Amino acid sequence: MNILLASTSTLYGGKYLEYIKSEIAELFTGIDEIVFIPFARPGGVSHEDYTHKVKEFFAKLNIKVKGLHEFDNPKSALYDAKGFFTGGGNTFLLVKTLHELDLMFALKENVQNGKPYLGTSAGSNIGGLNMKTTNDMPIVYPPSFECMGLVPFNLNPHYLDPNPDLKHNGETRETRIQEFLTQNDTKVVGLREGNWIRKIGNRITVEGKETTRIFENDKEPYEIMSGTEL
Amino acid sequence: MNILLASTSTLYGGKYLEYIKSEIAELFTGIDEIVFIPFARPGGVSHEDYTHKVKEFFAKLNIKVKGLHEFDNPKSALYDAKGFFTGGGNTFLLVKTLHELDLMFALKENVQNGKPYLGTSAGSNIGGLNMKTTNDMPIVYPPSFECMGLVPFNLNPHYLDPNPDLKHNGETRETRIQEFLTQNDTKVVGLREGNWIRKIGNRITVEGKETTRIFENDKEPYEIMSGTEL
Repeated sequence: MNILLASTSTLYGGKYLEYIKSEIAELFTGIDEIVFIPFARPGGVSHEDYTHKVKEFFAKLNIKVKGLHEFDNPKSALYDAKGFFTGGGNTFLLVKTLHELDLMFALKENVQNGKPYLGTSAGSNIGGLNMKTTNDMPIVYPPSFECMGLVPFNLNPHYLDPNPDLKHNGETRETRIQEFLTQNDTKVVGLREGNWIRKIGNRITVEGKETTRIFENDKEPYEIMSGTEL
Repeated sequence: MNILLASTSTLYGGKYLEYIKSEIAELFTGIDEIVFIPFARPGGVSHEDYTHKVKEFFAKLNIKVKGLHEFDNPKSALYDAKGFFTGGGNTFLLVKTLHELDLMFALKENVQNGKPYLGTSAGSNIGGLNMKTTNDMPIVYPPSFECMGLVPFNLNPHYLDPNPDLKHNGETRETRIQEFLTQNDTKVVGLREGNWIRKIGNRITVEGKETTRIFENDKEPYEIMSGTEL
């Protein structure tokens, strides 16, 4: 497999995908066209507008982009494609749409067969075992929370450390993930913004400028350095 | 109906339910025993430990508390009860448990028939039409997101204003609720900590020390004062 799962598409003050441009170029080496999956619709933008934004970025890498919503038969489009990018937004909306169109397994099969896959945020969540560690609001009801399981764990993108100054009683991210672990025996990778997971063949590493926080049942959460194998 | 739906159980630096003690006393006037629904299990605490904490608070009001998990037949217990309190924690776990035990409708029916109901956080979410505006992590998969609809809108407890100092690309609460509105034509009440919704008969008001933020389709979000009818 040849996979890049990023915590976020955009760093604070930066431009769309810019911080990870060279890694994306390497991921899609030799590929001149990819299929973009716009179903997460961040902020409610249309599939068209979202795909346009992605086309602008990939033009700089001389890679053409087609939105999956543009195809009459999206499942065939996945089997015909050379590579994939799933953008961020709302994970519930993304997973619901993929399941209802019967595309989750088709996408998984194509990525398992070696086609490069890029995900950011919600698009990274669906690379995990299931979407039970998303931060998103459940604005729609998906027929299942199961995802592709391209990696043998769950992701928490945009992982955020507790803010000691916040005078607010809502749960911290760490508390939420610990609640997940009371109900599931699944490793969770807390991926801070600026970090990503890279899988080449069977080797999975965490990359980026920050350390990464790992949560497992019956263990204290711990930090791993960039480059560590998962 | 006689309902109090609070944003949070505990204010920053305060003690459990203390800030709303006199309103709770008024809600349960003439009632000497209530049933506590501990299924949301905040932080993964046991049903027993959670119920113990609630018993300690209500002892100050001379109200006895039985945990719903203590009954062999929890549905009968709802019909036998004099009043209810559903505590906060994880809304997915709460809603899944209520649906699986076939208790959501039984609870609704008893509250509609006039038995007083107190909810905090997740326990307030289930008073709304559905749980699609919870902040919680989807750690389990409920058979449905539908809730009791004791009020004709959805709640967002622990409503939090955007933090302009945060150098983080995760969605703000307002962005998340706006995404909800692209998929649902349902009013959302953004209930800041310290505020609560009170329903007496058919009259619904928002109460507490903060203003409350209202989100509706095709409208700019707006603020309403404490005491405003909803």
